[in-house]
Amino acid sequence: MSIQRFLPCLQWLPHYHRDTFASDLVAAVVVTVMLIPQSLAYALLAGVPAEYGLYASILPLVLYGIFGTSGALSVAPAAVASLMTAAALQQLFVAGSPEYLAGAIVLSVLSGLLLVLMGVFRLGFLANFLSHPVISGFVSASGVIIATSQVGHLIGVEAAGHNLLGMGQQLLGHLHQVHWPTLAIGVASLLALVAARRGLVPALVALGLGPRSAGLAAKAAPVMVVALATLATWAGDLAGDGVAVVGQVPSGLPTLVMPSLEPGLWQQLFLAALLIGVVGFVESISIGQTMAAKRRQRIDPDQELVALGAANLGAGFSGAMPVAASFSRSAVNFEAGAATPAAGVFTAIGIVLAALFLTPLLTELPKAALAATIIVSVSSLVDLPALVRTWRYSRADFLAMLATILLTLGHSVEAGILAGVSLSIALFLYRTSRPHTAVLGRVPGTEHFRNVRRFEVETSERLALLRIDESLYFANARFLEETVLELAGERPELHDVVMVCPAINQIDASALESLEAINDRLADANVRLHLSEVKGPVMDRLRQTDFLQRLSGEVFLSTYQAWRKLAAA
Amino acid sequence: MSIQRFLPCLQWLPHYHRDTFASDLVAAVVVTVMLIPQSLAYALLAGVPAEYGLYASILPLVLYGIFGTSGALSVAPAAVASLMTAAALQQLFVAGSPEYLAGAIVLSVLSGLLLVLMGVFRLGFLANFLSHPVISGFVSASGVIIATSQVGHLIGVEAAGHNLLGMGQQLLGHLHQVHWPTLAIGVASLLALVAARRGLVPALVALGLGPRSAGLAAKAAPVMVVALATLATWAGDLAGDGVAVVGQVPSGLPTLVMPSLEPGLWQQLFLAALLIGVVGFVESISIGQTMAAKRRQRIDPDQELVALGAANLGAGFSGAMPVAASFSRSAVNFEAGAATPAAGVFTAIGIVLAALFLTPLLTELPKAALAATIIVSVSSLVDLPALVRTWRYSRADFLAMLATILLTLGHSVEAGILAGVSLSIALFLYRTSRPHTAVLGRVPGTEHFRNVRRFEVETSERLALLRIDESLYFANARFLEETVLELAGERPELHDVVMVCPAINQIDASALESLEAINDRLADANVRLHLSEVKGPVMDRLRQTDFLQRLSGEVFLSTYQAWRKLAAA
Repeated sequence: MSIQRFLPCLQWLPHYHRDTFASDLVAAVVVTVMLIPQSLAYALLAGVPAEYGLYASILPLVLYGIFGTSGALSVAPAAVASLMTAAALQQLFVAGSPEYLAGAIVLSVLSGLLLVLMGVFRLGFLANFLSHPVISGFVSASGVIIATSQVGHLIGVEAAGHNLLGMGQQLLGHLHQVHWPTLAIGVASLLALVAARRGLVPALVALGLGPRSAGLAAKAAPVMVVALATLATWAGDLAGDGVAVVGQVPSGLPTLVMPSLEPGLWQQLFLAALLIGVVGFVESISIGQTMAAKRRQRIDPDQELVALGAANLGAGFSGAMPVAASFSRSAVNFEAGAATPAAGVFTAIGIVLAALFLTPLLTELPKAALAATIIVSVSSLVDLPALVRTWRYSRADFLAMLATILLTLGHSVEAGILAGVSLSIALFLYRTSRPHTAVLGRVPGTEHFRNVRRFEVETSERLALLRIDESLYFANARFLEETVLELAGERPELHDVVMVCPAINQIDASALESLEAINDRLADANVRLHLSEVKGPVMDRLRQTDFLQRLSGEVFLSTYQAWRKLAAA
Repeated sequence: MSIQRFLPCLQWLPHYHRDTFASDLVAAVVVTVMLIPQSLAYALLAGVPAEYGLYASILPLVLYGIFGTSGALSVAPAAVASLMTAAALQQLFVAGSPEYLAGAIVLSVLSGLLLVLMGVFRLGFLANFLSHPVISGFVSASGVIIATSQVGHLIGVEAAGHNLLGMGQQLLGHLHQVHWPTLAIGVASLLALVAARRGLVPALVALGLGPRSAGLAAKAAPVMVVALATLATWAGDLAGDGVAVVGQVPSGLPTLVMPSLEPGLWQQLFLAALLIGVVGFVESISIGQTMAAKRRQRIDPDQELVALGAANLGAGFSGAMPVAASFSRSAVNFEAGAATPAAGVFTAIGIVLAALFLTPLLTELPKAALAATIIVSVSSLVDLPALVRTWRYSRADFLAMLATILLTLGHSVEAGILAGVSLSIALFLYRTSRPHTAVLGRVPGTEHFRNVRRFEVETSERLALLRIDESLYFANARFLEETVLELAGERPELHDVVMVCPAINQIDASALESLEAINDRLADANVRLHLSEVKGPVMDRLRQTDFLQRLSGEVFLSTYQAWRKLAAA
């Protein structure tokens, strides 16, 4: 059991049979065809040579297959992780320089290491602090930045930078240098991809394919577009005219690489590696859980940390760049029938074949075509309606989302995430520091008590029932004192205050001192303090102190008992 | 009303009469006698010339009298604020250098400015994030550091430094250089002060004074001890033997000083000024509220921010050092009968007289005697039993307290506070991210439902009542999904899950998405999701979404209604 937990492949491998093999194989073929142009394009996005994309699609897939718990997740180069890699390294090094490439390797190894450690120490819950609105805002903003970063490749001008302002300025500055042959290839690829996305499935269905097969076959569109663009470039010798191409790519498999162990570099890249790891993990988990639920399976978050960490360690030691699960690729893998993580291992074999035999074909591949595949692929990341939905439901969540988007676009991906997380936490603390309170009355003829402002209820002059809708802790301890004493100050005929506590889940040491102060001050004014509906765990803690002895009133199991005893007295 | 709120003196000044004047005057005399040696000693502690202590006891007292709401608070040089001043400035400048003195002025002005701004923008609630255990631990540790910092003066050796390790090393290293005449004066002063604290009141009562008058008269002990020590030093010409004395102090009043406006200096001192201000505010508030409650008065926290800020601005423009309310002095002020902030203004007049006429007497005042008064005075700050109490009640609070103490002692006062606050927040978030949950059953024959593990209750095979004891937000959204789906997975005969929600005070956007996911996944498994006892504000928010339409089950006003409908079905 224990070793199976740590090596989930031991759960499915013994029961592996011919049918599973067949469906895994089909999925692997479809995903391989999709992954070849994607891995090259994301390497371009990350600012490393194209072959790094292929190298990052072999060992990581195999390692995820061994350690992962989701059959559908496709862990290899991904859009957001590649953007974050570029953003982190561009601040420190010249793109493409040996230091830059060494940095990409350290980023992979370090984020892998951090993920494995988080998994071993069961720190997966830390990822929960990336709230849905922050993640959603961050992914949308990343989509915009990624698309913008590819516009330069598409029109043949230089436009480095890691935020929207920097890139926008450069693009506008270089606009007069547009390289028309590059632009022609780029726009043609873009149009072809958009057309394929819209019209290919209906066309294939019209040709007699079933809808599912048509959907899967349509996933080959990027590889076809890239192949046609390469053919056109080669036929017209456009590289000679100045169209940027991938160029000579070494054929063969990655060799094992020892990452730089320079402490200064590790320190500089620590935060970026942590964020790449955590963001990748959060995305993997949400993709994995969505798909697992459809098949009534469960995935184990702590084991997923280990698996994603192992995949990144594999990418680093292959001399490549950080990897993560891609939503689009995982969805295709799932739809194509991937039943076990073996599908990923078969995909890795497909990429090995590509690295061995296809690399000569890449020489004349125009970068503009790869840029077009990226732009079309990330367009699905941008979810603007989420902003509206969040605004309607919660202003606080909207604020965190907006801050994440604006800082990601305007400053950097790291600043965006950190601002979103900090603001989410700050707003949560702010809300809990000024909790909702309600004075209660009795719903006539029942044992139920409701807010006097919302319901027609009975009240008593000599009794105040005050419900506090929050755990009591340091941030609201003083607010509590002020609320209770104000209530007592406003009602001179008051004899008893009952704090109705079903919503109080904790009372920390600061709040306990405040309760003692409230009890003493009410006693000075001849008002007794009572508690009702105190939760079991909270009561257990209070019993360890002398507060219950010092309490001027009683502790009632139900508010109704308090009402019966105190309202009429 | 509005101007009275901003200038609280307009509330009491129109009703000021002879009786109030008399009791304020008595309090002022007692406090002046206490403040003279204190202000000199705290200047020594802060590392500035002795007269700065007097200068910081004039304008600040007057300004607090105009803007403050508490009649008892004595805002002038205080132990913890002086320690924090020394700690901040020793890191940057040589003690006593012109830069150091300019830094003290900037610290006062900056902390005053920040406090006034916090008051104007009603940010007083920010101080709540300094929890009681953190404050208590910080004050205890500060007491230890202050006492240790005075040991050098007491035995006549050099021992600078701002944490226990640094000072301890220096003291041990210089132990062979003990200056015996200094040690004799120091130890004699210390013993005299301890004896006075223990025996003076009973002795005065035996001589026929009333207990209250005896208590107040005993407050003159430090001034007597200091006077005797000065006399002895002068008579024996001990300054010539190498006993450190205060030396020439310029006679007269402080002149208005323009603080340095160098941006670099302001930036370097920003954090220290903020912490001095906030810690001073938290102490002022707790002292002020304790005393106000005894007289059935209220104090206004936001106005107290403005008043303490004005006092610090006054200290800065007097060319002196940061000020705060001192607990011991405020208690004496209160006991001596101070009725209005005018008592502070009269005290300021007393200090003006001292600055004009007493300074020649300070020339031969031995620093060892001042150090003795500090040591005796801060001994009451150290509250070790609080550690034990906190450990018994809450491990999390204890951890925050211990971290504060250890870092304050071992590193610096700033590190101590920041670690304590961060750890308190982190532990609160951690606890709320793994909330307590309970499966409920019906208390037989009633409409009440209790935890099946704690009570003998009725349950139903087809119905699960799950109470979540926490607001639902991003940090526990995933935990919630796992808990509910695990429950459903364990009980195959389950038809209905009721989430019992009286403890749920908020549902943020992340948690709403999780609820939608739970609803969908339970529906896939033919289990309906219901809610009961949803709070009004939470329900209002849910109504703005389509969640209630998508919910597979119902929303019940009470859990009993859910039980009646679903348990028997």
